[in-house]
Amino acid sequence: MRGMFHLYTGNGKGKTTAAIGLAVRALGAGFKVFFAQFVKGQEYSEIKILNSLKNVTVKQYGLDCFIRKEPTEDDIRAAKQGLNEVSQVLKSGEYQLVILDEANIAVYYQLFSSEQLLQAIENRAAAVEVVVTGRKADQKLIDQADLVTRMEEIKHYYQQGIMARTGIEK
Amino acid sequence: MRGMFHLYTGNGKGKTTAAIGLAVRALGAGFKVFFAQFVKGQEYSEIKILNSLKNVTVKQYGLDCFIRKEPTEDDIRAAKQGLNEVSQVLKSGEYQLVILDEANIAVYYQLFSSEQLLQAIENRAAAVEVVVTGRKADQKLIDQADLVTRMEEIKHYYQQGIMARTGIEK
Repeated sequence: MRGMFHLYTGNGKGKTTAAIGLAVRALGAGFKVFFAQFVKGQEYSEIKILNSLKNVTVKQYGLDCFIRKEPTEDDIRAAKQGLNEVSQVLKSGEYQLVILDEANIAVYYQLFSSEQLLQAIENRAAAVEVVVTGRKADQKLIDQADLVTRMEEIKHYYQQGIMARTGIEK
Repeated sequence: MRGMFHLYTGNGKGKTTAAIGLAVRALGAGFKVFFAQFVKGQEYSEIKILNSLKNVTVKQYGLDCFIRKEPTEDDIRAAKQGLNEVSQVLKSGEYQLVILDEANIAVYYQLFSSEQLLQAIENRAAAVEVVVTGRKADQKLIDQADLVTRMEEIKHYYQQGIMARTGIEK
């Protein structure tokens, strides 16, 4: 059966964690999972657990979120190289689930284009399930996806002054 | 610091997976995690992986989703017993993250009340982070939560006739 294309977007907390949860579920069913993180260079807590599991490959393509600063040439190069690598992975069909975490942000900051991302997704081996996350999803991705969930922030504790905490946000 | 109360609701895919992702992140930071599933009795694929990890306890309180049928006395008993157990876990502070997956559905079907659920959450040890998931969150829970994300279904492949698949939905 054809693999589906999922898109998790919106401003609310839960996009990357939903992708991690999907990775864990797929691993539990014996799938091989490729987890690509764009625009993230830090080792988030979840990466330690994913790396300890069998049948999952985690790769990070980027330095860190450049919120409030411009992406550098290095950021752009890392993202483009990442998309090339993930395109090959998608095409090969070696992994039954391929996650492109924060790829929407890479498009938003023009590290690569929505057309380049869509081409990689469309050229995947037929059975591969693909997941894209991140705020500000491009309308072309929304149009092409089989599933779109918008994580809407109704309220968030950062409004109480709570900062990102290890084990919960990172 | 006081632990936060997260609520993930709405009709879109990504609520339980976000909770699993949070569990994995917390485990990666060395937290102990209690993962309680209400209204679910099947062994979903993710449970196999969670059960293979250290520092996590998974408990299921219920038989299965009673969509299109009425909850039985057994369903009600299982949910009430579950809430009692989880209340003790929350109060003890033994686990730094406690997840009540699908507890909103248990409230919606009146297996226990929103007041009973809120009391358990409010009586937790101060540092415990608590996560409640499920559609149709009660307004009292929304009012009390520190973080609310509404997973809005923009589109879903079940509209194409795709049924729940092992490794992706279960």
